Amino acid sequence: MNAAGHLQQYLTARRTAIDAALLAALPSPPTCPSALADAMRFSISAGGKRLRPILCLASAEAVGGDWRQAMPTTCAIEFIHTYSLIHDDLPAMDNDTMRRGQPTLHVVAGEAMAILAGDGLLTEAFALMAREPREGDASLAARKVRVIEIIAVGAGAAGMVGGQAIDLAFVTLDAKGMLPPPLDAEGLRAMHAKKTGALIRASASAGAVIGGGSIAQIAAIDRAAAEFGLAFQIIDDVLDVEGASADLGKTAGKDAAAGKPTYPALYGLDASKRMARECLDRAAAELGAVQLADSRLLEIGRWIVERTS
Amino acid sequence: MNAAGHLQQYLTARRTAIDAALLAALPSPPTCPSALADAMRFSISAGGKRLRPILCLASAEAVGGDWRQAMPTTCAIEFIHTYSLIHDDLPAMDNDTMRRGQPTLHVVAGEAMAILAGDGLLTEAFALMAREPREGDASLAARKVRVIEIIAVGAGAAGMVGGQAIDLAFVTLDAKGMLPPPLDAEGLRAMHAKKTGALIRASASAGAVIGGGSIAQIAAIDRAAAEFGLAFQIIDDVLDVEGASADLGKTAGKDAAAGKPTYPALYGLDASKRMARECLDRAAAELGAVQLADSRLLEIGRWIVERTS
Repeated sequence: MNAAGHLQQYLTARRTAIDAALLAALPSPPTCPSALADAMRFSISAGGKRLRPILCLASAEAVGGDWRQAMPTTCAIEFIHTYSLIHDDLPAMDNDTMRRGQPTLHVVAGEAMAILAGDGLLTEAFALMAREPREGDASLAARKVRVIEIIAVGAGAAGMVGGQAIDLAFVTLDAKGMLPPPLDAEGLRAMHAKKTGALIRASASAGAVIGGGSIAQIAAIDRAAAEFGLAFQIIDDVLDVEGASADLGKTAGKDAAAGKPTYPALYGLDASKRMARECLDRAAAELGAVQLADSRLLEIGRWIVERTS
Repeated sequence: MNAAGHLQQYLTARRTAIDAALLAALPSPPTCPSALADAMRFSISAGGKRLRPILCLASAEAVGGDWRQAMPTTCAIEFIHTYSLIHDDLPAMDNDTMRRGQPTLHVVAGEAMAILAGDGLLTEAFALMAREPREGDASLAARKVRVIEIIAVGAGAAGMVGGQAIDLAFVTLDAKGMLPPPLDAEGLRAMHAKKTGALIRASASAGAVIGGGSIAQIAAIDRAAAEFGLAFQIIDDVLDVEGASADLGKTAGKDAAAGKPTYPALYGLDASKRMARECLDRAAAELGAVQLADSRLLEIGRWIVERTS
């Protein structure tokens, strides 16, 4: 079997474990009201690539850790990613009615329940990281605190939520009814570094911390994941232009139609693809500078750049 | 000076410290986009009784701890309380345009920014609890993890968000266009135990944990705070009937007008007030069963029951 085949096997195996762990980690009745539990399960079960969870597990493994110990953190990260999609899809935000090929939660369960389900997933993520794993060496509590900080910073006002706020400013009319000037190249990169990059990066760093990585390993994985995050966003923009709606599970061309700045709009399709490959090269240099247990993180990076959906 | 005078002095001193710490703990530019920072500051600065923060600090002091060490947890709790008000006020939820005598955040900054500011405050709360306090004995990391779990569980699907979901069900029409039957007495108590009680309880427990309380002290403070939470809600319902809008900073009689179940509606005003005093008696019994450094928690309970706004 070639490398791509081995990676597919790895992704399938880990996704199966992640999906099972996610369902087990979801709050359920009687402690959680059933309508809320149903709403959270609907969005968590809607699938997706599970990119962030896989990066978290693979990072724990790359530093020689046990991926099973990283599973609670992994589930917490996907809870946070899923909450961000739920809130992002709301009528007051992007007003998306389809996501991952299914109707969005506010279409199915109403806007109020979608807000609450998002709030619930975000909060449960931190309960989960504080509670599990239960067993570990004496340094476990200190590593948990560090992971919680990494994830909260990546997901918060300096990270993902901050990126959303920047994005929002570009579709918000000012007092004179005018839109602000479009983002330039540096502004676009900075927005994406927060909006999608920060949580992707935090996922990998958190996995490396839980896996017991050295300072150098954690720093290299963190920087490589920043490159993966940028590559991911560039390819997302490329697929938004090139992809069919069926493959993406959402409406293709939507960003461009909304006048949102994208990499292809700024640089063209070919240069965008080359930029994504350059991210991969820089990530390879980062990962190559430290001793890791396997080369899977880089294979995952290649998959991010070569994906078609 | 009498006991009430001393308590007022204590509340004023702690509120001043809390308000300063809250402003210092808020994310700010350049790491946080300025529109998002402004939105979060607007809601945090809108004031309020700071009941949960005060309970957290007073609980740390009651077990002989230093209230300054409990301040990051205290700020995190007020961030979470404030996010819950922002989201609760949204058009899709309670659709409130006034709060604490000021226009609500979505009126001032738009619905999308209000959703994001709430998400940001909730996430920053956990970043704060993981990051601070920085200095402490060897058990600090373990206590931080425990506090984060207590707060996340109190704020999450089994606590505050769960209570909101139950509340929501009673204003949501079913497939036949009918409202569900109104809550009975037990259902009302259970909803409030989650919706307002869980975070109030978690605030006190978390303070006792950070303050280094014994298992018995933490358990007694937790149970007493559950009584305070119930008393708080009963008095809130009473004030909604009796109070003037100016004192409450919101529209009086709104709950009753919306047909929401309330204590006065179920039991009458006099019996409701008696029930609140009975909560206080039970809290006194809990707190009297353990050795505490001072009697301030009970004075705070009395203030909760006797408040007029």
